[in-house]
Amino acid sequence: MRATLMYGPHDVQVKTVPDAQIVAPTDALVHVTHACICGSDLWPYNQMEHSDAGRRMGHEFIGVVEAAGADVRTVKPGDLVVAPFAFSDGTCIFCRQGLQTACLHGGFFGTGAEGMDGGQSEAVRVPQADGTLYVLPTGPDDGLMPSLLTLSDVMGTGHHAARAARVGPGKIAAVVGDGAVGLCGVIAAKRLGAEQIILLGRHPDRTALGKEFGATDIVSERGEAAVERVRELTGGLGAHAVLECVGHGEAMLTAINIARPGGAVGRVGVPQEEAIPGSGSAFYKNLTISGGPAPVRAYMEELLPDILDGRIQPGRVFDRVGSLDEVPDGYRAMNDREALKVMIEF
Amino acid sequence: MRATLMYGPHDVQVKTVPDAQIVAPTDALVHVTHACICGSDLWPYNQMEHSDAGRRMGHEFIGVVEAAGADVRTVKPGDLVVAPFAFSDGTCIFCRQGLQTACLHGGFFGTGAEGMDGGQSEAVRVPQADGTLYVLPTGPDDGLMPSLLTLSDVMGTGHHAARAARVGPGKIAAVVGDGAVGLCGVIAAKRLGAEQIILLGRHPDRTALGKEFGATDIVSERGEAAVERVRELTGGLGAHAVLECVGHGEAMLTAINIARPGGAVGRVGVPQEEAIPGSGSAFYKNLTISGGPAPVRAYMEELLPDILDGRIQPGRVFDRVGSLDEVPDGYRAMNDREALKVMIEF
Repeated sequence: MRATLMYGPHDVQVKTVPDAQIVAPTDALVHVTHACICGSDLWPYNQMEHSDAGRRMGHEFIGVVEAAGADVRTVKPGDLVVAPFAFSDGTCIFCRQGLQTACLHGGFFGTGAEGMDGGQSEAVRVPQADGTLYVLPTGPDDGLMPSLLTLSDVMGTGHHAARAARVGPGKIAAVVGDGAVGLCGVIAAKRLGAEQIILLGRHPDRTALGKEFGATDIVSERGEAAVERVRELTGGLGAHAVLECVGHGEAMLTAINIARPGGAVGRVGVPQEEAIPGSGSAFYKNLTISGGPAPVRAYMEELLPDILDGRIQPGRVFDRVGSLDEVPDGYRAMNDREALKVMIEF
Repeated sequence: MRATLMYGPHDVQVKTVPDAQIVAPTDALVHVTHACICGSDLWPYNQMEHSDAGRRMGHEFIGVVEAAGADVRTVKPGDLVVAPFAFSDGTCIFCRQGLQTACLHGGFFGTGAEGMDGGQSEAVRVPQADGTLYVLPTGPDDGLMPSLLTLSDVMGTGHHAARAARVGPGKIAAVVGDGAVGLCGVIAAKRLGAEQIILLGRHPDRTALGKEFGATDIVSERGEAAVERVRELTGGLGAHAVLECVGHGEAMLTAINIARPGGAVGRVGVPQEEAIPGSGSAFYKNLTISGGPAPVRAYMEELLPDILDGRIQPGRVFDRVGSLDEVPDGYRAMNDREALKVMIEF
């Protein structure tokens, strides 16, 4: 089969690799129909050490089950399924709490781990298929596919940021970052009842989409100027709920500084530094800092009806569609901020 | 009147200063009967830059109201009151949420702020008396005084750590630090229903008291060895709720590393570094980090009955009692770990 591999910075290639196949009786084999490139894939795209073997890429995909291992009970060949970016058994102490990204028998797609396929390929071996895969109640040619594909990561991740930031009715939310996750964070904040949604971002096309998703204010300043602007927009107090959707220390510091006392920062941007800045500021304001890899598997059930009804349209974050062969150029386009998020159709 | 001033590292003196007096109509004048030295007073004791004028010290006191300003409604001369370490108006948006340490018209005792008295002195001008002072239903010679005095800081602070760490029935709590706040954290964790309470500390007399307060396990190791030991004690998973009661980066890193996925760290140790370490560890485990200066004023109502009934005895953290003249030696003794916490009787 053909799959996407990354060999080092700016070196992404589509290669022929051994066919994905069932190894454990709890595996399923999924033929991928839709996949995409993640903002978090750009971290290794810029920083990865050279690898001769290459790293299998991709952790967001929809596909059709081709085969299921002997112990798989809940999915069967022919099912259209969406996969979360992490696989999980669905039964361990953490899965039962809805924290599938901490599954005792789980792991992540597209990290280059031995024996693991990535989502940016024709087929994927899915471990722990019963706990991992979610069967979609639609056909594969449905116009809803882009939005359903966001259940595999960005929409669930934006939702997680909003939950961690304790967005609720009447609250003022602020979203740091206008990437696909930040924009899904806007959708999530609105969906959870935020009264005011301040989006911090500098890309006019993205913040325009953020406004369509529900942002009430756009702050294009950075650093101290951004903090000052949010203060002005919030009666001098700051936001109740801040969604940190970038991962850089500077973004985290901004998130902490725009939160009001007693507020919360929900962080889902993959942290790029060893420490969280602004310790004293967070402490003296009694902030809550929460978040991490989103248990998107837990959120599919909650978010799916809103997508099926068209109440939310997170699939609008895809502004480019290509084939598997176009994946390398997709990375380039996203890295150059030419594309917001690239979907791959097979 | 006589008051405690700090002039620089290890330089604490009791001096005659102008009498405290009412300045604003919302002030009360309190004649101090009991005060104490805080572990947090040891930070400036070791690090303060020399000051010719000196810094007024002390933020924990019980006393009798001598006079009340024209606008004061809830306290009157003769009332026995306990003061929280922060003053607050009790009416602003944050006070109404129970976050009095963020009061829009508030501040802290004993920080050296212009015009502010400290608690380690014969009398204190208390700003915002209605919001700040809490009238005690007991006489001043009562044996409960030590425990009631802890409502001004350490017991409320330990309770705040436990709340921020989301201690609840059946949970495994871990307390980092065997100082007075950590020991009060043990009391709070037990009071809130923790099933197992692991106390991390190296002072046998303190951890022995911790066991009497409810600690089920003592971990005297530090760093990686402590993390390993807590892992052993928790079935390999870590604690649900970690109370960070020190403030050093190393203690915070330990707190993060002993928490289980989805767990929470409640921090009340005054942070001594610019950043929170362990950003990645906290992120990948989806930890919640919360806490800050405890709104102890909000907790007095809740904790008082348990003290009056003798169900909790946080006053046992005082292992030395002295007069105002003995305050300088009290600092030395606490700094040398010769005393756990020093109470001052007037």
